[in-house]
Amino acid sequence: MFELMFHHDLLDGAGANLRATTVPLFESLVALVEQASDRSDDSRMQAPAIQTGRHGIAVLSSNRALELVGSRRDIPVLVERAVSAHL
Amino acid sequence: MFELMFHHDLLDGAGANLRATTVPLFESLVALVEQASDRSDDSRMQAPAIQTGRHGIAVLSSNRALELVGSRRDIPVLVERAVSAHL
Repeated sequence: MFELMFHHDLLDGAGANLRATTVPLFESLVALVEQASDRSDDSRMQAPAIQTGRHGIAVLSSNRALELVGSRRDIPVLVERAVSAHL
Repeated sequence: MFELMFHHDLLDGAGANLRATTVPLFESLVALVEQASDRSDDSRMQAPAIQTGRHGIAVLSSNRALELVGSRRDIPVLVERAVSAHL
C-alpha cells in the first residue's frame, strides 16, 4: 500500500480514491507547516521539502539501505531533522 | 537499476558488487559534506539527511506524485533545499 499510494504514474487510470486521499493529506501538512513556521508564505515549498525527506527515510530504512551507513537509532534523528530543517 | 541499487533487503544474498558500490558512494558524500559544512563533526548524520531527502525527491518525482501538489519547476528548488538545509 505504501508503494502504491505514491505511484501516481500507475494510478492514472485506476486509483481515483487513492489520489483523492493523497491531496487532502498533503493539504493537512501544508496547514501544519503554516502553524509551525515563521515564513508561512513559503509553505507550498516547505511542505514538499519535508514530505520528500520523510519519504526518502521511509524508503531507505524499509529497504535496509540506511543500515549500511549508520545505526537504526539514527532514524528518529533523521526524521526530526527532515522536519525541523525546513521550518 | 535505481530501485535495485537501494534494495539492500533484496541484495543480501545476491548483489555484493552493488553493495560494495553503495558504501564508497556514501563515503564520497560524507567527504563532500565535510568540505562544505562548518560543523564537520556531524557529517555522519548530515550526509544521510541529505541523501534521504534527495532519494525522496527522486522517487516521488519519478512516480509523478509531486505533480499533484506542485510544478515540475519546483524540483530543482527542492533539490537545492534538500542539500543546503543540512549543511
